[in-house]
Amino acid sequence: MSEEQKRKVPRIVILGGGFGGVYTALQLEKSLGRKKDFEIVLVNKENYFIYQPMLAEVVGGSVGLIDTVSSIRKLLPKTRLCVRDIASIDTEKKVVYLAPQFTHTEYELEYDHLVLALGNVTDFRGIPGLHEHAMPFKNLADAILIRNRIIDVIEFAASVESEELIESLLTFVIGGGGFSGVEVAAELNDFARKLAKNYPEIDEKKIRVILVHSKDHLMERELSESLSKYSEKLLKKRGVELRFGQHLTSATPYEAIIDKKERIKTKTVISTVPSSPNPLIETLPLEQEHGKIRTDRFMKVRWKEDIWALGDCAAIPSEDGKGMCPPTAQFAMREGKTLAKNLVSVIRKKGHKTPFHFKCIGMLGALGHHSAVAELFGRFKFSGFFAWLMWRAIYWMKLPGFDRKIKVAVSWMLDTIIPIESVQLKMTPSQGIIRLHFEKDEIIFKEGEIGDYFYIVVDGEISVLKEKDGREECIATLGAGEFFGEMALLNENKRGATIKCTTAVDVLALRKSDFGALISNFEELRSSFEMTSKKRKDAIQGNGEDEKKNKIA
Amino acid sequence: MSEEQKRKVPRIVILGGGFGGVYTALQLEKSLGRKKDFEIVLVNKENYFIYQPMLAEVVGGSVGLIDTVSSIRKLLPKTRLCVRDIASIDTEKKVVYLAPQFTHTEYELEYDHLVLALGNVTDFRGIPGLHEHAMPFKNLADAILIRNRIIDVIEFAASVESEELIESLLTFVIGGGGFSGVEVAAELNDFARKLAKNYPEIDEKKIRVILVHSKDHLMERELSESLSKYSEKLLKKRGVELRFGQHLTSATPYEAIIDKKERIKTKTVISTVPSSPNPLIETLPLEQEHGKIRTDRFMKVRWKEDIWALGDCAAIPSEDGKGMCPPTAQFAMREGKTLAKNLVSVIRKKGHKTPFHFKCIGMLGALGHHSAVAELFGRFKFSGFFAWLMWRAIYWMKLPGFDRKIKVAVSWMLDTIIPIESVQLKMTPSQGIIRLHFEKDEIIFKEGEIGDYFYIVVDGEISVLKEKDGREECIATLGAGEFFGEMALLNENKRGATIKCTTAVDVLALRKSDFGALISNFEELRSSFEMTSKKRKDAIQGNGEDEKKNKIA
Repeated sequence: MSEEQKRKVPRIVILGGGFGGVYTALQLEKSLGRKKDFEIVLVNKENYFIYQPMLAEVVGGSVGLIDTVSSIRKLLPKTRLCVRDIASIDTEKKVVYLAPQFTHTEYELEYDHLVLALGNVTDFRGIPGLHEHAMPFKNLADAILIRNRIIDVIEFAASVESEELIESLLTFVIGGGGFSGVEVAAELNDFARKLAKNYPEIDEKKIRVILVHSKDHLMERELSESLSKYSEKLLKKRGVELRFGQHLTSATPYEAIIDKKERIKTKTVISTVPSSPNPLIETLPLEQEHGKIRTDRFMKVRWKEDIWALGDCAAIPSEDGKGMCPPTAQFAMREGKTLAKNLVSVIRKKGHKTPFHFKCIGMLGALGHHSAVAELFGRFKFSGFFAWLMWRAIYWMKLPGFDRKIKVAVSWMLDTIIPIESVQLKMTPSQGIIRLHFEKDEIIFKEGEIGDYFYIVVDGEISVLKEKDGREECIATLGAGEFFGEMALLNENKRGATIKCTTAVDVLALRKSDFGALISNFEELRSSFEMTSKKRKDAIQGNGEDEKKNKIA
Repeated sequence: MSEEQKRKVPRIVILGGGFGGVYTALQLEKSLGRKKDFEIVLVNKENYFIYQPMLAEVVGGSVGLIDTVSSIRKLLPKTRLCVRDIASIDTEKKVVYLAPQFTHTEYELEYDHLVLALGNVTDFRGIPGLHEHAMPFKNLADAILIRNRIIDVIEFAASVESEELIESLLTFVIGGGGFSGVEVAAELNDFARKLAKNYPEIDEKKIRVILVHSKDHLMERELSESLSKYSEKLLKKRGVELRFGQHLTSATPYEAIIDKKERIKTKTVISTVPSSPNPLIETLPLEQEHGKIRTDRFMKVRWKEDIWALGDCAAIPSEDGKGMCPPTAQFAMREGKTLAKNLVSVIRKKGHKTPFHFKCIGMLGALGHHSAVAELFGRFKFSGFFAWLMWRAIYWMKLPGFDRKIKVAVSWMLDTIIPIESVQLKMTPSQGIIRLHFEKDEIIFKEGEIGDYFYIVVDGEISVLKEKDGREECIATLGAGEFFGEMALLNENKRGATIKCTTAVDVLALRKSDFGALISNFEELRSSFEMTSKKRKDAIQGNGEDEKKNKIA
């Protein structure tokens, strides 16, 4: 890299543009002054910093769609920003590899000091169907997708007649009763109920918002029991169903499954749990504790002189030495400040480092509908409208950037005079190959329905049912690696059989148009299809009774 | 349909929620009064009405992302809105079939009177690579995607060193010099240049915005020659390159091709031409003229008593009988009003119908950067800042809905005091199977690059090149139906060969992750791959010289 040879001062590379990364860079810029004795590079997926505490308001629309994010470039004028995905990190060569974009080559970013501020991710692995059918609530796109889904199901419920379908469209299930789960449930509940009032076809009372939480009260890690109880009362009053000591154990296109037995018919499953550190962390040869990188109290990574870590991806010993610092925005901001100072001290060979020290001032949580709960200095507790005003005031003050402050203030003012909007921002993403999860006894499609997808069984077993003389007959069973649904796409328009899951089933689904593109252009695939199709047709006409498995769908 | 049996009054179904459809429904609601002697149903893809004249402002960000759209439900409280795709129309049975969503069944919507207001679409068929690589500019998602692309390429240009790559990233090519082409070029040019000023790494002078127009001056159908000349001067001054009498004849991931010879390296091709009526129109057994539905001067479709048409999808004879009414928003709005009155007159058996009559008041076009051109009553012509103020005032007045008016006014006020934003709204759509178009001699990928996609040749021929002793050797050629690129995905990480197009080539590309999902779960496919892979490996190792075609990529 030609540019690398020019490098004369040490380079600090910060990975991640959340609270930890951005506040580290802010302090580094301050310390840098005019000395220019080091350079700062920040790598982030997006060119903006998400102000997480306000994200739930995007769902309800009380702030503009992009008012909760700030341009990193504006916040950090002296930092070089790379808006790229991280492919891998080589701690021996001291290089971060950035994933290709617009070209097919990786970009090598050398570092002298590396700051890991990669945060955590919602990790649905291990819970069947969550990855496929549950919506996470972590970033801006998630919030907008949730908003769109709410509008979608209500629009759709207004135009159909089946009571069963309407019921499932108007049921929302949210997993996780921590801060973000509660905030999203509160905003969703408010928004859906307000929105429904615009639809004469919809009875608002049919809306069900169900919050499933594994513990016995809400936000047990963040709030005292009395405030938690207050929140529960408030949410219940507004119509949120609270399920304590229960778990979301699986999701399908039709249902949310609670504790492996109760099946709630729904088209909208949101899950804020479980969260785990960024998968990149696993790949690093650094000492870890519960998936987080172990640091000392100066936030330097153990046994490494040039790697630092903070925020949700780091295990930083707490002041009393007994536990770890909690993964909250408040802590990440203060950690960033201390880390930056220590790092500069090392670069300038001052020899002095400060251990991280911070006592949490308080906790605030919005509950939608002009109410909130707050707890300050571990002693003062507020709730209701006053807490909500305080919540807005404090977060507004902390909101980075003057422009953003104005925009949010204006949005909030307009919000009090203008009724809610049902306008959707549809980006109509093409779906390509999607994964679907079904539970035992669910129907993937019914005889006579439109052929819209082609399916490949990844796991589990399905049976192919056909109506004959008024009763359903199983004409075949298919398992992993086998496919179905191609006949309605290739020849006719309607499904020739019903597909029912005899176990829990994972499938890959290909849209009709994508299937068509593949089949008509991919010789290898076409010929193998033609063979199978012929067999299946023969089987249906009864001249291939031995062909037990390959039959029409 | 049980609900259908309950129907007692005639049902008017309007297809399309653009200016034509919405203004027809507005007038119908007015005429309906409290009589309720007919019902109104409007079918639209989105639940909002797009205020097209302001769409270009979304690109530059001077109005909020969703401030150019209004909720149809709010505009039309007495109309039943169906937010659905239209699958087909049966004019014999008098039924519109709505496409499945959330379920696999179509919805049958019966009508007594049908109003076709389906508008037109940007139709890239017949121009190679446009569908794959050019961005249309028609709806809200298009505007946001264009905005995101501008931010993307500038962000990326700030983080790479290759001069050639930077040049292509900072070049923007726009096809079509009608109103929308000019507006989008003007806004894009302003936005990109302002944005680049925030990036110390980027030299604003390197930005090229090229507008390609087939005629010899801009907006020749919409404006007088003198105003057109004025616009040209203004755009040139701001740095837009104008290409007259030229055509965008093809696009690839690397280039825009002008008149089949000149190749402009770019990552951003936008095309506002050619536009053609909605493809549904073609499927209808109605008399057509240049793809538009022929109506009489009352906007009733010829030879049909129950079908009406207006707006961009209709051929309505003009007053002088010599031509057709122009496809503009001004006309569509007035057509809607007249059509609705005629339709009500038929339903109420009044026997009186009014022929469509409207004289265009004037034309307005925004040129970004606080300037515009205007022409009133065919005589008064304005340009510059005054025209721009008038443009804003008129469109603001015409903007439907009071809430929207406030929001847009506030956005405009904020816009004058707050600097532009580079914040992107990324929805990270999963791409699935994409189509790519390449021209002769272009490289699809190079030996040693990262394996990110698997490819299937749809059309054309590619050669597989491998470096041997310092020179490139062609080890195979592949044609339609054959595939390449699987080896780097299956085994190694880097491409083992270079793929070069020997003709113009169309391919299907499957992302690594999608390819992986298919191959590991789809028995049929895997086995055929394993065979081919073995052959290709043998070929490389020299023990299969006869295997001319199947070689590594």
